[in-house]
Amino acid sequence: MTDIEIASQVEMLPITEIAKKIGLQADDIEQYGKYKAKLAWPLAYRPDKKHKLVLVTSINPTPAGEGKSTVLVGLGDAMNQIGRQTVIAMREPSMGPVFGIKGGATGGGYSQVLPMEDINLHFTGDMHALTAANNTLAALIDNYIMRDNSLGLDPRRIQWKRVEDVNDRALRNVVTGLGGVMQGVPRETGFDITAASELMAVLCLATDLVDLKRRVGRIVVGYTYDSEPVTVAQLGFTDAVTILLKDALKPNLVQTIAHTPTIIHGGPFANIAHGCNSVIATRAAMQLADYTVTEAGFGADLGAEKFLDIKVPVLGKTPDAVVIVATVRALEYNGGAKLADLDRENLLELKRGLANLNRHITNVQRYGLPVVVAINHFASDTDRELAVITENCQSLGVDVAVTDAWAQGGAGTLALAKKVVQLVEETKAEFTPLYDYQASPRAKVETIAKKYYGASEVEFSRKAEKQLEQFARLGWNDLPICIAKTQYSFTDDQTVLGAPTGFKFHIREFVPKLGAGFIVALAGNMMTMPGLPARPAAVGMTIDADEKITGLF
Amino acid sequence: MTDIEIASQVEMLPITEIAKKIGLQADDIEQYGKYKAKLAWPLAYRPDKKHKLVLVTSINPTPAGEGKSTVLVGLGDAMNQIGRQTVIAMREPSMGPVFGIKGGATGGGYSQVLPMEDINLHFTGDMHALTAANNTLAALIDNYIMRDNSLGLDPRRIQWKRVEDVNDRALRNVVTGLGGVMQGVPRETGFDITAASELMAVLCLATDLVDLKRRVGRIVVGYTYDSEPVTVAQLGFTDAVTILLKDALKPNLVQTIAHTPTIIHGGPFANIAHGCNSVIATRAAMQLADYTVTEAGFGADLGAEKFLDIKVPVLGKTPDAVVIVATVRALEYNGGAKLADLDRENLLELKRGLANLNRHITNVQRYGLPVVVAINHFASDTDRELAVITENCQSLGVDVAVTDAWAQGGAGTLALAKKVVQLVEETKAEFTPLYDYQASPRAKVETIAKKYYGASEVEFSRKAEKQLEQFARLGWNDLPICIAKTQYSFTDDQTVLGAPTGFKFHIREFVPKLGAGFIVALAGNMMTMPGLPARPAAVGMTIDADEKITGLF
Repeated sequence: MTDIEIASQVEMLPITEIAKKIGLQADDIEQYGKYKAKLAWPLAYRPDKKHKLVLVTSINPTPAGEGKSTVLVGLGDAMNQIGRQTVIAMREPSMGPVFGIKGGATGGGYSQVLPMEDINLHFTGDMHALTAANNTLAALIDNYIMRDNSLGLDPRRIQWKRVEDVNDRALRNVVTGLGGVMQGVPRETGFDITAASELMAVLCLATDLVDLKRRVGRIVVGYTYDSEPVTVAQLGFTDAVTILLKDALKPNLVQTIAHTPTIIHGGPFANIAHGCNSVIATRAAMQLADYTVTEAGFGADLGAEKFLDIKVPVLGKTPDAVVIVATVRALEYNGGAKLADLDRENLLELKRGLANLNRHITNVQRYGLPVVVAINHFASDTDRELAVITENCQSLGVDVAVTDAWAQGGAGTLALAKKVVQLVEETKAEFTPLYDYQASPRAKVETIAKKYYGASEVEFSRKAEKQLEQFARLGWNDLPICIAKTQYSFTDDQTVLGAPTGFKFHIREFVPKLGAGFIVALAGNMMTMPGLPARPAAVGMTIDADEKITGLF
Repeated sequence: MTDIEIASQVEMLPITEIAKKIGLQADDIEQYGKYKAKLAWPLAYRPDKKHKLVLVTSINPTPAGEGKSTVLVGLGDAMNQIGRQTVIAMREPSMGPVFGIKGGATGGGYSQVLPMEDINLHFTGDMHALTAANNTLAALIDNYIMRDNSLGLDPRRIQWKRVEDVNDRALRNVVTGLGGVMQGVPRETGFDITAASELMAVLCLATDLVDLKRRVGRIVVGYTYDSEPVTVAQLGFTDAVTILLKDALKPNLVQTIAHTPTIIHGGPFANIAHGCNSVIATRAAMQLADYTVTEAGFGADLGAEKFLDIKVPVLGKTPDAVVIVATVRALEYNGGAKLADLDRENLLELKRGLANLNRHITNVQRYGLPVVVAINHFASDTDRELAVITENCQSLGVDVAVTDAWAQGGAGTLALAKKVVQLVEETKAEFTPLYDYQASPRAKVETIAKKYYGASEVEFSRKAEKQLEQFARLGWNDLPICIAKTQYSFTDDQTVLGAPTGFKFHIREFVPKLGAGFIVALAGNMMTMPGLPARPAAVGMTIDADEKITGLF
């Protein structure tokens, strides 16, 4: 059965029942249909509560993904089964990839979040609100340079791009404002996907509405002819943009197939953005449960690094344990096996690929965090393959559990849940950040690239070098770095798999995001607007008169 | 007090209570928060029910608008007060104008629909769903011409434009697909506002999900190098687009300040689109109440003509009475008074401006429909001014009532309600369409321009002439015409007010919308993407820590 077929056979509980499980009454939520709600209650965060936080990350994936969300959902269900009151906190899917290649992002099989069609499509409108707020700001900026421009904003130096939650490569590079005097000021610009927008990061890092407004106001939209930054606050657009985000700031409550309360909120990608769900949602989960299990996107080189270096300082809480999801398939892929061969036993490639897992283990341990490896079981795995991974982890003194969350849900994730609980309850994590927050952007990039990725050298483009000078002049030195790079490799080249060392890491350009509070470093040729494949998933979808949908994964 | 201040002092009823008033139970609706819902029940329309339908339209407005929505809401409240069970059916506001010049579109004063902030911003996400569906289709089309293009779709002849619910003039004319082989196929295109999109019209004219899907499939997205039309169905994208619209197709239920059930659904502008709320919503209202009061956008030259010639054939029901809203201000403006002088008495201009009202009366009567004039009272009106209008109407044998819906709500609209009920219950409307549906597009345009607007001649541009030949060749002759023109004038020149005759009417271009089932005729220099004014409303908006908003009208 497909994911959507499994999902359609589940009888969901009314969302009011799910809310009750975590102590929320009817007035604490705003229903969106019968099975979705926004948390309406004031999210007064009490940092003194003894909540536990578990972060789920993974090794470098294959293009099909390694089922990290599936393991996360199964883990949440299993934790509740073994008597630990647990809430899952995860990101909202982006609609663009749903119609492209990736499919949905709500887990799979018997470890899914429901209602999966709604969550994978418009959900409660957060992504659309971000798109609208982003593009309203863009229109206000273009109107400003056409009408007045008393601040001298340079049309060539406007940094604020429009966005869409669509995979639309034709919008990567556009010329707008054509047609004459009454049609605006012509300029080169482009669209990003909403998940990569600064407002998405702002929403995910804001601690409340006032903080959101402050962050919106300090967004730098561009530079004057004298290269001075111009902010949203200077233009007077702060409140209008904030108004459009007031509901999107409220976390969404849904349920898993096993009725585990799940808070889904914020959806930045981890390759081209910071890859973590919102601070408000994670805090809400921690407030409402003894255990919060959450995820960060793609491999630990991307999402987890950003979780630990960008989100944790705002969140005010470090993970009590980290789960690294690995699959036989992805290890073999990292060890040189071809995609078409992953269904058969490839012991040689598997053993070679373990270097990728081990690099991620070492990296997470570098932060002082306890690690457990989850082997996400696929039907094609052999006992010998599983044994190779288990023995490798044991030789490193790292806990490991085989999970079967897809086929068995929480029941297939019990062993992992027990190991996680043991690790959390018996280990004391001593968190050490990867880099000094006071270091220069150059130093931070070099630390991440060398200590974390394995590079021997970082090459900054001429443009990036000039930007580093500019940041120093503007006093933007103390911001964390958010690296945008391929999810397939520790390098900036997606074909270099495994655990490479001694490579040169290339920074093409920086994008300062003062509202989000970090500086994006674009590595290699990473794009901030995905494209569609030759045969988009959209072509295979159907809907009938009774709203029954097929072709959503 | 401002509209939003008045609105914020009202205690709304839970939407479940409003639903009960019209016989809907909890399972018949899907709540969106406590005060908004979508109708979830299958909208089985029984055309045999003896429901009455009242259409509210207006004379040519001033740029500030004449309070048609305010009168509509007051009328709905008053109808219920005099014992006629009434539901209001109206359009959804577009967010673009809210941040531009127009403000909200939920009535005003004590005749408002609530919660006004929500309805004027994201509401239940219908506009955003339309934007997403439209732009997903655009991305699929651009991906198709880059990847394969086995149908030979000509990049220069792609008609499908992207949309945004933002007033963004800089997107009217753009070049997309720049940057090289991997970034798509470069081409000239543009963005429209979502309210003007074909999908908006498709949503508003579809009778159910199956009809929606059929209409989406027959949309012509462009032409081949051989000038043959290419449809969504041919490209295989019908279901994917339909999936994105399945929830948007369900009408939204809210309430007025006086708790009158109000169905708000679909929001095409009447100047650049067909200007009527959805067929599904109007049918739902008729199913649930004895009286449905609804509106069509701008003056009767635009919204009402399109309601009667485009919507009625699908709806299967003609209005039992038509209310034409007039104001002293707009009549004086039409009679030559300057905008700055409208606050004082201008009897001469008022008398001259009556020609505009009288043209609209004659036009509506031409359809065989009973007319009542509503004078929407402003504080600056004098008794002498009101008497001039009343006497004019009486001399024509047309009922007239002065309304004060803004300041007094339903109580200020009782006289109008009584006249409407009398007209409906004592007159038998005999509907005659304006034009023969089998006539050619050229003949239809000429009928509308000459018989309805007062033109002596229609000039088709060279491009429009070529398109007429093309339509004849393709067999697209039997579709109704949707004229896009300025709302300020019967002509295509917004400075020609009053009731001009003997003018030349200019058709610049046609836009065939096969999914919607009509052909748009662009008159004069009408734009399908509005711009922002020198000082956008956005600049004056504020929001505080408790989500209290100011600056929304």
